[in-house]
Formats: sequence, C-alpha cells, structure tokens
Amino acid sequence: MASYKAPRRDMQFLLHEVLGSEAFYQKYQVTEDLDRDTMDAVIEEGAKFAENELSPLFQVGDQGCVFKDGVVTTPKGFKEAYQKFVEGGWAGLAADVELGGQGLPNLLGVVMSEMMGAANWSWAMYPGLSHGAMNTLETHGTDEQKNIYLTKLISGEWAGTMCLTLQPCGSDLGILRSKAEPNADGSYAISGTKIFISAGEHDLTDNIVHIVLARLPDAPKGTKGISLFIVPKFLPNADGSVGARNGVACGSIEHKMGIKGSATAVLNFDKATGFLIGPPNKGLNCMFTFMNTARIGTALQGIATAEASFQGALTYAKERLAMRALSGPKAPDKEADPIIVHPDVRRMLLTQKAFAEGGRALCYFLSQQSEIVYRAKNVTDAERKEADDLMGLLTPIAKAFLTEAGYEAANHGVQVYGGHGYIAEWGMEQLVRDSRISTIYEGTTGIQALDLLGRKILMTQGATLRQFTKMIHVLCKEVSEQAELKGMAAMLTDLNKEWGDVTMKIGMSAMKNHEEVGAAAVDFIMYSGYITLAYFWLRMAKVAVEALAAGTSETAFYQAKIQTANFYFKRILPRTKSHKEMIEGGLDVLMAMDEEHFSF
Amino acid sequence: MASYKAPRRDMQFLLHEVLGSEAFYQKYQVTEDLDRDTMDAVIEEGAKFAENELSPLFQVGDQGCVFKDGVVTTPKGFKEAYQKFVEGGWAGLAADVELGGQGLPNLLGVVMSEMMGAANWSWAMYPGLSHGAMNTLETHGTDEQKNIYLTKLISGEWAGTMCLTLQPCGSDLGILRSKAEPNADGSYAISGTKIFISAGEHDLTDNIVHIVLARLPDAPKGTKGISLFIVPKFLPNADGSVGARNGVACGSIEHKMGIKGSATAVLNFDKATGFLIGPPNKGLNCMFTFMNTARIGTALQGIATAEASFQGALTYAKERLAMRALSGPKAPDKEADPIIVHPDVRRMLLTQKAFAEGGRALCYFLSQQSEIVYRAKNVTDAERKEADDLMGLLTPIAKAFLTEAGYEAANHGVQVYGGHGYIAEWGMEQLVRDSRISTIYEGTTGIQALDLLGRKILMTQGATLRQFTKMIHVLCKEVSEQAELKGMAAMLTDLNKEWGDVTMKIGMSAMKNHEEVGAAAVDFIMYSGYITLAYFWLRMAKVAVEALAAGTSETAFYQAKIQTANFYFKRILPRTKSHKEMIEGGLDVLMAMDEEHFSF
Repeated sequence: MASYKAPRRDMQFLLHEVLGSEAFYQKYQVTEDLDRDTMDAVIEEGAKFAENELSPLFQVGDQGCVFKDGVVTTPKGFKEAYQKFVEGGWAGLAADVELGGQGLPNLLGVVMSEMMGAANWSWAMYPGLSHGAMNTLETHGTDEQKNIYLTKLISGEWAGTMCLTLQPCGSDLGILRSKAEPNADGSYAISGTKIFISAGEHDLTDNIVHIVLARLPDAPKGTKGISLFIVPKFLPNADGSVGARNGVACGSIEHKMGIKGSATAVLNFDKATGFLIGPPNKGLNCMFTFMNTARIGTALQGIATAEASFQGALTYAKERLAMRALSGPKAPDKEADPIIVHPDVRRMLLTQKAFAEGGRALCYFLSQQSEIVYRAKNVTDAERKEADDLMGLLTPIAKAFLTEAGYEAANHGVQVYGGHGYIAEWGMEQLVRDSRISTIYEGTTGIQALDLLGRKILMTQGATLRQFTKMIHVLCKEVSEQAELKGMAAMLTDLNKEWGDVTMKIGMSAMKNHEEVGAAAVDFIMYSGYITLAYFWLRMAKVAVEALAAGTSETAFYQAKIQTANFYFKRILPRTKSHKEMIEGGLDVLMAMDEEHFSF
Repeated sequence: MASYKAPRRDMQFLLHEVLGSEAFYQKYQVTEDLDRDTMDAVIEEGAKFAENELSPLFQVGDQGCVFKDGVVTTPKGFKEAYQKFVEGGWAGLAADVELGGQGLPNLLGVVMSEMMGAANWSWAMYPGLSHGAMNTLETHGTDEQKNIYLTKLISGEWAGTMCLTLQPCGSDLGILRSKAEPNADGSYAISGTKIFISAGEHDLTDNIVHIVLARLPDAPKGTKGISLFIVPKFLPNADGSVGARNGVACGSIEHKMGIKGSATAVLNFDKATGFLIGPPNKGLNCMFTFMNTARIGTALQGIATAEASFQGALTYAKERLAMRALSGPKAPDKEADPIIVHPDVRRMLLTQKAFAEGGRALCYFLSQQSEIVYRAKNVTDAERKEADDLMGLLTPIAKAFLTEAGYEAANHGVQVYGGHGYIAEWGMEQLVRDSRISTIYEGTTGIQALDLLGRKILMTQGATLRQFTKMIHVLCKEVSEQAELKGMAAMLTDLNKEWGDVTMKIGMSAMKNHEEVGAAAVDFIMYSGYITLAYFWLRMAKVAVEALAAGTSETAFYQAKIQTANFYFKRILPRTKSHKEMIEGGLDVLMAMDEEHFSF
C-alpha cells in the first residue's frame, strides 16, 4: 500500500491560518518564544519520524504480538522504533521542562499523535497510553510520585497504562470489584483481574507504570467508592533504577480483529504493591479530569484512519484503469480510464478527504481549547469556563462522530480498491480492522451520545449548546454576503436554528419519559457531528476565500479547500435530514417489543 | 458465539403466508405434488444440516485454507461436511430429476443457501460456485456436456467455478486477455492467468469444472469477442471417471480479510484443454443469462449476515448486565440491567432484524419471480416478461442494498458486544470481515447502481420502475383504511410518488450530462432499497394483521411482525430523505476538483 505522507500543508493551514496559533500562544503564554517556524520544524521532524520509522511497520504490526509464559513480544521493529522515539525526545514533547519535557504546546502533541497514528495506530497506542498515565500523575500525583514515575514516563524510559476495565464492567465502573488492602507502610495490596488493558504488557520498556482503579475495604458501593493507585510492574529502587518484580502478571493477550501490534492484556493483580494517587474514593473524579483529553486522543484515530485510507485510495484511483467515463474516454491512449474519472469514485474519495480535514480542524480546535483550560496563564476565569464548556460539548461529538466517520472512510478505501481492497497485501482492509475498535473503546458511540445529550446539553438546559450555536451564528453572518460562501452560510444558518429546535423537542419528550434520551441519543450525536463539521468547513472555506482575495501562489490549495467545503455541504451535510427524522421517530417503536419476542 | 438456529417460522411465514407457494407451484407446475408439508420437511432437514454440520465449523473456517505446492487444503471438517452434503442429495436440490437432481423448486434452494450461508458463509461458497457452473451447463451446454459434467455437479461428486476475473479486469471484462487456440480435435487450448477465483482449488472433490472466459484468435475487440469454455481440472475418461491432469494449476491463494475458509485462487491456464459452451464470441451473453441468479445468491449473504449477527447480538443483549435503564432499574435483583433494556441497544437489534426479515422477503420474492421466468410451465408470455422485468429491476437493488445492509448489521452486532465484539473468540467480528466482500464481488455497489439507474430504469424510460411502483400503489391502497397499517401506507404512498419524481429529475439532468447518472447512482440505489424493503414490510404487516384478525395461537409472532414494520417505517425508512437530497446535490461538486489537487 501507499506509504504514509504527513499532510504538512494542511496542518500548517490549520495551525497558522485557521487557528492563529502564534498569536494564541503569545496571548496565553503557554510556552515561551513559540513562533511559526519552530512549530513547522517540529511538524517536519515528527512527519519524518512517522513516515520513515512507523509507516514501514504498519503491516508488520498486523502480524501481532506474541504471548509466551507471561511475556509479550511486540512485532519486529516496534522496539527499535520506540528507542528512536525516546532518543528524539518525543515522549515528553508537551511535558514540563523542569521534569525533563520539551515544554511544547499540547496542540503540537496532538499533531504528532495524529501523524504517528495515521502511520501506524497500533504502535502509537504505546506512547498514547503512557500519555494517559502522565496526565494522571501530573495532575494528581505527589511531588515524590512525580519524581519517581513521571520523569521516567516523560523521558520514555518507562511506559504507562490505564487499568480501568474490569470483568464484568465495560463502561459501567460502578460494579468494579478489585480490592486495595492497606499495608503497614502506607502502600496498598491490590488484587483483582483487569481485562482489555491496552499496552498492559510489552517489551518496549524496562518498566510499566499501571494506573489502577480499585476499592478500599470500607469504600461506599458504586462509583463513589473507587480509588486510584500507581502499580508499577517493577518496584523502583531509591536511585530510580528498576527493582523487585511486583505482584502483577499478564495472564494472556486478546486475539483481536485489528490493532494486533498493540497488546491487549489480561492483568492479574495478586497483592501487588500500589500507591494511592489523589484522595481515597475519589478515583473516578481524578480520572474524569482528563477524560476529555483521552477522548480527543481517540477521536484522532478517526482522522488518522480517514487520512491514511484516503491516501491509499487516492494513489490507487489515479493508477487503476477500468471502464470508460460515461461521457466518453478521458484517457483514450490507454485501454481504460483511471477510475478517478468516475463520479462515484470521487464521491468516496471526497468523503474521506472531507472527514479527514474537517475532523482535523475540530480536533486541533479542541486541543487549543484544552490549552486555555489547563495551561494558559494570561486568562480570565470566564474565558477558561467558556473553553471548558465548549470542550465538554464538542469532545463527545469529536470522539463519537469522528470515529464513526473514520470507520466509514476506511470502508470507502476498501471499496475504491474493489476486490484488491479485500486482500491483506494492500493494507486497506487492515485500516478497517484497526479502526473498528475506535467507536467502542474510551466509551462507545452510545455512551458518548448519552453524555452529550443528557449530561452536556439537557442538564445545562442547553446552555453549552447555545454557546456553540452562537459561534456558528456569528460565522454565518460574517460570510452571508460573500459570493462563494453565502450558499453554505444559508444552509448552516438554517441547520443551526434547527439544532436548537430538535434539542428542545427531545427535552420536552424526555420530561415525560427519560428513556426518550436514550432513543434519540445516537442519531442526535451524528446529527450534531455533521453540523459541527459544517461549521469547521465553512470556517476553513472563509480563510481560503480570504487568502485567494489577498493574492497567493497557492491558488490550487485554497480552491481545493472551497471545493471540498462545497462537496461537504451538498453531498454529506444532507445526512442531517435523516437523523432528524429518525430522532422524531421516537421511543415507542423501540420499546414496544417484549424482549422474548425478538425471535421465534 | 451463539450457534446458528435457522429461523424456520419466519421462512414458513414467507413461503406459505406471504408468497403462497403451494398455490403458486400448483398454478405454474414447476414441480409435481409439492405441498406445504414437503416444503417444511425440506426446510427442517436443511436447517439441521446447517445447524449441526456447518455452524460448528464457522470459526474453524476462519483459520483459513492452506496452500502448498499447488495443493489447497480446506479447514479441518470442511471436507467431512461436504461429504454429508453430497450424501444428503443437497447439491442437486433444485436440479432436474432426469439428471439425478431432486427436482425441487429453486425457491427451496434459496432457502437452503441462506441457511448454509448464515451458518458458515465461507463453506457455503463451494456449493455456491458449483451452482453457477451448473446453471451455465444446464442452459448452454450440449447434451454430451451435460452428461459428462452436469450430472457430476448435480451429484456433488465434482465441484465447479466461474473463472471470470482476469488481471487487470475487475468488472471491466472488455479488456480481458486470456486466449483460446483451436486444437485439431475441436477442443481449445486455453492460456492465461485468472485471479480471484473462488473455490478455484480445494480438496473437497475429485475434480473441479472451471467455466472460463477467453478470446478466440480472431475475436473482435472488447466485450463482443469473449467466448465461454469448460476447462476441467482433470480430463474425464469416457466412463465418467477422472483421467489425466489438465493444464490448469493453482499458483497461490489470497490472504483475505475474511471468508478465509473459502479458497480464492490464482489459476494459471497453460494450454489447458477447454471445450466451447454456447456460440463463439457470445460468452458474455451466456453469462448474462444467469447473472440475476448469481446476484441473488450474493444478496443472500446480506440477509445471512444480518440474521447470524442478530442472533449473536440478541443472545448477548439478554445476558449481559451493564448500567441501569434511564427510567430506573428493570432487574433490581441484579447488579445491573441486561442491556436489552436500553433503547439504543434495541435500535441496533431491531435494525438487524428488520434488514434480515425484510431482505429475506425480497430475496424469496425474487426467487419466486425467477421460477416464472425460467421454470414455469403454465405461464403466458406476458406474465413471463413481467416477472423478468421485475427481476431485472429488483435484482441489483437486492444485491447492492442487502449486502450494504448486511454489513451494517454485522457492525451493529459488534457494537452490541462492546469490547468483546472486537475479540475473535466471540465470532462477531468475523461476521464483519466475512461480509465485507459482499458489497464488492459479483459487481460492486457502484456497478449495481449504474445497472439499476442506467440500464434498468433510464434505458426503459422508467417502464420497469413503474411496474413495481404500481404494485406498491395497489398494496398501499388495499390497506389505506386499516387502522394499524394506514400510517405506514400513507408514508409509502408519498415515497412511491417521490421515487418517480426523483428518477425523472435524474433523467432530465442526465440528458444534459450523462455523468449525472454516475453521480446519483449509489445514493439512488440505496434510496430505492429502503423503499423496496418498506413495500415488503408493509406486505408482511398486512398478512400479520389479517392473521390476528382471523384468530391465531401465535399472537406474539404476528405482533412482532407489525412492531418491526413500525420500527422500520419510523427509524429506518427516513434514511431516504438524505439520499434524496444527496442525489440533488448533483455532479458538479464531484467533478470540480482537478485530480492533481486532491492532495498537497
């Protein structure tokens, strides 16, 4: 398959032209002296790493990890690539300089994660999980915990995990059963079995820092009795070196549909020594602090998948000859036309492109908001709250909608290849298999949908939604007289109003029967996702129109942005129509059937 | 995973209550003495075979075929199951009694294919391909060819293939390159390489009868210069036994995303002895005779997948406990509610169910039409033409729409299982992988869409479409005063009219630019599919309402039919809205971008 090529120009377009990052970082003083050239240089180096080290291992990774006698061996080349990742200082890209990090913006970390993920998602999961552990320790760890564990995670010498899921919980952590018994020295003895632990065991690093949810002996029942612990695979010595093996062992790894290079472990904790992070029984609150960040990290799989599959399909569509265009031969000297002349092939390619680029805008925007929430210095409380609310609203949309869109895009990639798409050697079907998990882990589409509609919108009486629809309204007004944009602006203005109406209607039904929320939620989050992406496409098209008006040597680049926006509005955005009507289809037709009568 | 259980009651409902098969076969004299009990007995025996012999091999098959030194070994148990298939006389179920067949209706063959395919699609492909070869020989073979080859295929002793695809053709057979040189004895020497040959090599039978497309030396260029040949793996002796090895060899088998138990062979023909079937240069015409049958066979994969995934998901949804219902605990004695209480889980289950049962009605109906076209005795030319036209219209819809729907259903099955759906041991992800090919082979969704819109509808000035919309109109009128059905009838009446309007509009644009057909085609076939299934759901609901009115001991069964119909109309049929608007989005936004500007 085509090897991955990072879309540098598109990334720069977003960072500099759409999101105005240079001015943003100057204003908010997140880092010192961050200019455009530095950002571009980081992207360039990151792109090279993803293209040269990770992309060649994409199909190798599909051969999977090997589990033997408790030891997990990652696919050939994974360890060497990880070593280069550490040497390049990539593990601590956005971490504190004082703790050994590079002190660069999170936004650049997101760009880097996207590139690594598009080149090789299963490899990228190892540093991705470490990132989760880093966030936990940074926010909730004591200074001692930071010195011992966080510095090693930032250097990349050690890796991390998030041990949340426990048979039989899934997304329902209230029924979690693993125990933490206090030891005399202030540590805890952690026991229980955790399943589905990504990067739970591997050979990339000398040590693995598990962040584990467990219950203290006297803990209240349900989600309010869960505490958070650090459980290292090897207990560290005082000098920071790796000491005695702790009581945590990998029992097996899962045989999965995809992301086979990423080990998904069953971990058995047998009185393993653990150290409490944060206050007792507040483990879930501690986790929730960076739930948005973790979800954006998964949303990236959607755009990484769409981008990778788009690149593969585009290359093939230009080379592959089959049939003649309906309007007559386009390549009369060849025995058939390249399939990119066929409108339906273009429809699939443009869908992939619109999802990748539109989703990228959404994710980068969200990452910028997270800088305001977590790292900005020169910021008012009101600004911070606004950014936090916006993140709360848009994060479940990004997670659910972009992973669904990414999976759709991967399937278009297979379809463009026809029969060859189904064959392993082209790599297109691997993207389908690798991305199928993205709509499930880190909270399924259904869970995200309940979070959005129930918690974020209805519980705030629509306040957070209004905050975003106001932004949309302002943008539409700004361009309402602009010849190339006014058609799109008019469509979005109508939909923006409709979004509020649809929400209000669900709210009214939900007052009568709360189950109506569950009946509407998934269609509602998809509906919301299409409108959200339309906002970002109009915003990008506006920048493109302005650049063309100002004069540019990159006419084709900006025109392609406007053309993709037009495609999105005419051939993707109409999907909102169906979702609206399916929402209105309501609850009754879902609940009428007795569960014993589903089959005979 | 849950083992397959054939939906006998639903099959009987369709055969007897919806399609009135007993009266149908009496009227058309396709077979003698075929009563309801006989049909039910065949279904029961077939169900047992699928459940007991094939379903246990479903996951075994995923381990794949082994290729070594030109020999293909099928997964463990495949050969033994095939032996039982032959012993049961299943291979010749619908074949002529004179040639050793059972002389039963094709419709029962379709029911059998569905059951075998739902239990184990990759196993079922072997007899499926033989069926294609049988059809070819039956229609176009000489008596001698029938005696030598067809009888062995009917008994199941030998298997068959259809060697159509040739590097680099795909669906574009005009650029086919394999050659057929005349030998002195009237046979031909066939040379060339064929790829993607399902069941092209295996160990299930002593001989394999390849049906091969190739060009005679003086053949016209393009699709009008293709002839059809029989090329047996072993040349038969005069007594029907297997003789000398022919010059056809398996070069390799593909590593595929799914259907791994079905060997997909590269076949090298090196002056292999072949025998012409049908007139020279008319090979494609000969193939087209039963293209509809082959497409219906692939459409069955859609319903087989939807049914199998539905059964797996339903079992899990009743057992798996997670979260409480939004309206309060439904199983207060358990630590959480079974997930079937959640509206969104029901939405997924009902979608699977609606596709499986609605698609089944469409396929069985089509099979009944094929009996009128190919086998009915007591039939007028007008009746036959009407059935033929209806088949021509509905077959591409069935192929494209039902395979897309089946794939969607398989994905819902994974989603219902959450993280477990992604793990191989549950079998749900295998259904996704196995069914991904169904929207590609036997003509992609895009190819079916062009056939429907271009060839079947616009080239007949909408005549075939009007034939079907008249049937819909009649049904809607019949039930327009019926309390439980009139809401659905009103929706369908509107859509039925809209279908004509949408088609007319496309026809008008296509007169200006023929590429508009390609721009609209896929959205149009999906739009048409949703309306077509709505017709069958209303028709089934009508039968159910009548049965309830007449009094029945199976109240719950009939009520579930009406409930599923209601669900389909409220929560699935609205998808037509988006497809209509995306069709109206038109061609320009697809063609505006220069092919060099898709990426920078």
